[in-house]
Amino acid sequence: MRTSIATVCLSGSLTAKLHACAEAGFDGVEIMDTDLLVSYESPEEIRTLCERLGLSIDLFQPFRDFEGVEEEPLQDNLRRAEEKFQLMRRLGADTVLVCSNAGTATVDDDARVAEQLGRLADLAAGYDIRIAYEALAWGRFVNDYRHAWKLVEMADRPNLGTCLDSFHILARGHDPSAIEQIPGEKIYFLQLADAPQLDMDVLSWSRHHRLFPGEGSFDLTAFLTHVLRAGYRGPLSLEVFNDTFRQTDVVSTAAHARRSLTWLADRTAAANSWETDRLEDPQPLQDVDFVEISGNSLDDVDEMLAQLGFTFGGKHRSKPVRLWSLGESRIILNEQSREDSPRLSAVGVRVDSAEQAARRGAALGAPAVFRRTYAGEHVLHPVAAPDGTVVYWNDQPPEGTWIREFEGGDAESFDGSGRSGSRAACVDHINLSYRWHEFEEAVLFFHSVLGLSSQDAQDVPGPQGLVRSQVMRSTDGAVRLPLNLAPPTAPMPARHVAVGCTGIVELARAARRRGLQFLKVPDNYYADLRAKFGLQENFLTELQELDLLYDRSDSGEFIHFYTPTLGDVFLEMVERIGDYDGYGAPNAPVRLAAQRS
Amino acid sequence: MRTSIATVCLSGSLTAKLHACAEAGFDGVEIMDTDLLVSYESPEEIRTLCERLGLSIDLFQPFRDFEGVEEEPLQDNLRRAEEKFQLMRRLGADTVLVCSNAGTATVDDDARVAEQLGRLADLAAGYDIRIAYEALAWGRFVNDYRHAWKLVEMADRPNLGTCLDSFHILARGHDPSAIEQIPGEKIYFLQLADAPQLDMDVLSWSRHHRLFPGEGSFDLTAFLTHVLRAGYRGPLSLEVFNDTFRQTDVVSTAAHARRSLTWLADRTAAANSWETDRLEDPQPLQDVDFVEISGNSLDDVDEMLAQLGFTFGGKHRSKPVRLWSLGESRIILNEQSREDSPRLSAVGVRVDSAEQAARRGAALGAPAVFRRTYAGEHVLHPVAAPDGTVVYWNDQPPEGTWIREFEGGDAESFDGSGRSGSRAACVDHINLSYRWHEFEEAVLFFHSVLGLSSQDAQDVPGPQGLVRSQVMRSTDGAVRLPLNLAPPTAPMPARHVAVGCTGIVELARAARRRGLQFLKVPDNYYADLRAKFGLQENFLTELQELDLLYDRSDSGEFIHFYTPTLGDVFLEMVERIGDYDGYGAPNAPVRLAAQRS
Repeated sequence: MRTSIATVCLSGSLTAKLHACAEAGFDGVEIMDTDLLVSYESPEEIRTLCERLGLSIDLFQPFRDFEGVEEEPLQDNLRRAEEKFQLMRRLGADTVLVCSNAGTATVDDDARVAEQLGRLADLAAGYDIRIAYEALAWGRFVNDYRHAWKLVEMADRPNLGTCLDSFHILARGHDPSAIEQIPGEKIYFLQLADAPQLDMDVLSWSRHHRLFPGEGSFDLTAFLTHVLRAGYRGPLSLEVFNDTFRQTDVVSTAAHARRSLTWLADRTAAANSWETDRLEDPQPLQDVDFVEISGNSLDDVDEMLAQLGFTFGGKHRSKPVRLWSLGESRIILNEQSREDSPRLSAVGVRVDSAEQAARRGAALGAPAVFRRTYAGEHVLHPVAAPDGTVVYWNDQPPEGTWIREFEGGDAESFDGSGRSGSRAACVDHINLSYRWHEFEEAVLFFHSVLGLSSQDAQDVPGPQGLVRSQVMRSTDGAVRLPLNLAPPTAPMPARHVAVGCTGIVELARAARRRGLQFLKVPDNYYADLRAKFGLQENFLTELQELDLLYDRSDSGEFIHFYTPTLGDVFLEMVERIGDYDGYGAPNAPVRLAAQRS
Repeated sequence: MRTSIATVCLSGSLTAKLHACAEAGFDGVEIMDTDLLVSYESPEEIRTLCERLGLSIDLFQPFRDFEGVEEEPLQDNLRRAEEKFQLMRRLGADTVLVCSNAGTATVDDDARVAEQLGRLADLAAGYDIRIAYEALAWGRFVNDYRHAWKLVEMADRPNLGTCLDSFHILARGHDPSAIEQIPGEKIYFLQLADAPQLDMDVLSWSRHHRLFPGEGSFDLTAFLTHVLRAGYRGPLSLEVFNDTFRQTDVVSTAAHARRSLTWLADRTAAANSWETDRLEDPQPLQDVDFVEISGNSLDDVDEMLAQLGFTFGGKHRSKPVRLWSLGESRIILNEQSREDSPRLSAVGVRVDSAEQAARRGAALGAPAVFRRTYAGEHVLHPVAAPDGTVVYWNDQPPEGTWIREFEGGDAESFDGSGRSGSRAACVDHINLSYRWHEFEEAVLFFHSVLGLSSQDAQDVPGPQGLVRSQVMRSTDGAVRLPLNLAPPTAPMPARHVAVGCTGIVELARAARRRGLQFLKVPDNYYADLRAKFGLQENFLTELQELDLLYDRSDSGEFIHFYTPTLGDVFLEMVERIGDYDGYGAPNAPVRLAAQRS
């Protein structure tokens, strides 16, 4: 499937955008009139550059406010159009996007509008140009793709077709299934954009908040299925107006954009059992294999894990790497690092076929990570997330494979099976944090490469602004990653791993005895807990004495506590009682404030 | 009039917020439950701190999701409430905000809801606490202040009243005039917030986009008039949820907030011809007296002004300051500066009474600026805008006063009257730029201190993101300040002064002859101009040869060009033909792109 992108999605000059599009592997571009207008390069130079870069100019856009006017302005609009047709010939573009009149339309008469579109098409024919007519969601009289198509049908010209834009159709809540009734060869162009579900005026939503496919709430797989079933065989093109992407680095945003189309084509083919455009199937995630913390001196982390009751699983036989575990939760401390302070650097997940998962990751543009593997060592297949966090897939039980590479662990309570005996603990969730310009790309990465789904985002008040929290999880919840978006001026929040356990009160008491001080919770919090939930006084006292936090939902309860932050990482211990399915979000402001004091 | 502010408006810890509120001159605070909850200080400590700082605790808030429920949850809600009443006694707060149930209400029966509010009030009475019941704009059954007041009337308790919040009322478009029918003593509290006119869901609008009075679109003067006419004599309190203010420095945001109330009280008193709470009247602005560019070496600017045809008006007799003028536009070059690169540092405006204007500025918290004035020199009254730009008021004709302090100017064309002869030039507008966290404060400053009004904001695409442009102007347009809001990651855009003139084509040609190169405009721009406006070929050629930009509206035409940027400043020459009233916004993308290349 051919891929294309509108130059308006990206930052910088037109030539920089074109270079970035080619590097990201796009086949073509939509050139935005304004992007050309502000360039010093002539249309011929842009054409030649595109040829050298192997980019076709799939569309020139937009031509606005043409139809639905009286005869006198129409004459001027035809004159305007002809100037642009001449420009397009210099540029070597043969399709122009004409969007429905949103500004100057006064005539709401389909017969007259169709006649006007016909005259435009006839004029364009003299230049061998095709007109792709699109219904803007906020068009004055034409704002539904079915209406635009009806007008195209009425005008009935060989060089007049329609352009479909997923945003304009799905944002209005229009049923996309009627697309299948449009002959594929009359769909001249397809623009794709995702978007978050927002309740705001559609123009602002469109101009500021569009997202790349896979990052928002639209069902683009179903949408694209309708378009392909109609017989459309042109490029899949991205038109994403987004305040953030307009500012981010053009090269990485283009790569990020390209990945979204690979994902969409794959998911659409998979949903329809088509052979083409398929990647390896995504591998269902079984559980978290391990979490890695790295830094060039991790003695403090060793001490904290021991205090929490983790069992030392030994030193790696050939690398400065140590293993700790509590039940099925395994934490690797890796001192092969140039970083001074500890950070959460990698996540291992278990799947059926690690190689297949790695191939899918590579096909989605996730860079492979070099990992030195000595003879006899277990081979892992890491790729890097956009922020550098490494993801490892493992398709073997850890006990028989990589855990054997660790030697000298505590034999008594650590039986070499990777379990530390009594407690049925596991990694409950891993909390990652991102800056404003990294967030959407992270969502797309975890969605497309790891197959995680987005849950509703939530804003949590912190002392330096609202922190947005969006959970991404595997279908059965075995792998859960809350992603935090930090306010622009706040320091980057620390990441953390939350270990699920039973008997958290005793675990906390034992950790205290071993000298661990937890994040100090204000007394006022417990007064509020009493008011909120009417907890029994002795239970409340116990929570307060141990700095434990508490939440309750209709389906269960949640008790948790936080360790101090070491470098850029801390741990959380959590116990879920009943079917509690959240992450203690009401307590997040307490944590954010306490971590700042 | 007493002033108050909700702690949720500000960033940081509760104690930091309280210190900032006291320093800004607030009389009291509304303490947000969550702010207390995340604090290590006990309620008694907060009470004692407030006493020392001279802050009354005017309100404890919010108590949510109380009324409109069945008996069993009501019992639990009363228990919850009683815990909070006990907390309030420790805190020394005697009024609690109860907002209408948005989450758990199931009973839409006024009689039952009134009965429930009555029971809550009776419980509160035992703690000497007053209940201020407020209709949230998104309350499940109660979302109109008239409905909330009706319920309060029905419940008829001596310690039950209503709380009015301008946002909840004006955002819903409810007519505030019925407020006058509420007895003043039953309005227990008044929360004020402005907001931009946005078409989005009211909950998100409220939680993210509220503004301080004077910064948005609400008519708060009329609103407050209704409340005061009703007989309300409690504090004017700010409750402004805004993503930016949650992140900005707590001390400066508190000062900024306090200024908004001073402005609002003054405007409301003025509108009603009340004696109290009045400041000096704002001084109508007559015109721009001068613009000052400062920097420690401004020879390049001298050269550019000479090339543009400005006349040298001489050196100041006692300071390293020079004067240039073109018609009525005067530019001061001030080398008393520690800055390396030239910047637009001050604006002088002419008014009837400079002293009165300065007193109003001081009363609004604008810091006075020290200016060395030697014997016999004209005394000016500068204050600093929030970003440090200095504003001078002058109530004398410049010719007889400060211009006389400049010596050795070009006598032939500069007759000492401040005019340079032939051309009727003047300062057309002054373009200032701000970072995201400075913008609202700048709007409030120019609105309150200079009496400028905001015009609609516009987003202009630049190569590094959208630049928001909002024009602030005096009633007759004699003083016009477009304020630009730069995208967060882009470098701070240069500021500029636009000088209006006639005969711009000849002026440009003469400047070219004198060796000035203008900002180079791409050829593609002229192809677009031809398409857009169908200009005559010879006129178009002339524009293109001289790098002139052009715009046209229904009322007139606009021709302009830009100089290169020197340090952080550049000049624009503009000619308005007919009644063109804009600023050439369609050409801004061309300028932004060209300035970046």
